[in-house]
Amino acid sequence: MYHRSVAVYDRFLNNLSQLVAKAESHCAARAIPPEAMLTFRLFPDMFPFIRQVQLSCDFAARAAARLAGEEPKPFPDTETSFAELQDRIKAARGYMAGFDKARYDGAESRQITIKIRGQDVTMTGEDFLNLYSLPQFYFHIATAYNILRHNGVPLGKGDYMGG
Amino acid sequence: MYHRSVAVYDRFLNNLSQLVAKAESHCAARAIPPEAMLTFRLFPDMFPFIRQVQLSCDFAARAAARLAGEEPKPFPDTETSFAELQDRIKAARGYMAGFDKARYDGAESRQITIKIRGQDVTMTGEDFLNLYSLPQFYFHIATAYNILRHNGVPLGKGDYMGG
Repeated sequence: MYHRSVAVYDRFLNNLSQLVAKAESHCAARAIPPEAMLTFRLFPDMFPFIRQVQLSCDFAARAAARLAGEEPKPFPDTETSFAELQDRIKAARGYMAGFDKARYDGAESRQITIKIRGQDVTMTGEDFLNLYSLPQFYFHIATAYNILRHNGVPLGKGDYMGG
Repeated sequence: MYHRSVAVYDRFLNNLSQLVAKAESHCAARAIPPEAMLTFRLFPDMFPFIRQVQLSCDFAARAAARLAGEEPKPFPDTETSFAELQDRIKAARGYMAGFDKARYDGAESRQITIKIRGQDVTMTGEDFLNLYSLPQFYFHIATAYNILRHNGVPLGKGDYMGG
């Protein structure tokens, strides 16, 4: 299932990198302090832009590890600039590239245990990908996009979809 | 591929129905005019809440048809109330339920042609699902969620994920 997990995550993390680059350019062009964009939340108890990017990276990297049968490596959440977010995306993509494609053969039936609201939940790799990992991943990419659009960064759906 | 297309769309359209119900309750409890929520956009050139729900339904229903080898039936975009959005979601789910599950066997290799920015693009059912349909679907569900959260509707990630 490499092509519908890691390959998809890699493609959309590349799209996310373009979104981050356009956000940085927009801040520079309009003299907007980068931290105003980076820390923006759509509502006070929602995560800011930085965290949306970090979580997009985490859902991708963790799925790549779990579907390959490994415990995910934790990435510290220390980013405070657009450049550091680009490095985080590169790190997630590099981490995913470290797993041989062949390790995803048969990942559909691998038993995967994750914590959901504090409870251990075990499911097949197939259900993990379709019902947990993909919807979580796209949620955070779309929310990162929505934060930028809400703040006037000139983007369109094509920037989210890529290509 | 029924389980990772139609079954997923049906589950998340059910989640979307719960989001719409909570939005309606919140408007009633806080005496917020429903049209203020229904027509809210995160930015002036983005689609309003109503259209995000319509597009979520369309991406699901159209994928169900195309993967089954049918031309999608168009749904008119006439909804102006929460109740009508619930009917739209029901109609999309009912339309998807009308395709026999067996029609999705082998849909991976079906040739599917869609218009992307005015151009005909042909791809396999596999690529259509992974690289077009799923990311578009989750984009509009997540954006519908973000519009509600931005407007103070008390929701959490569990409402998006369901279960």
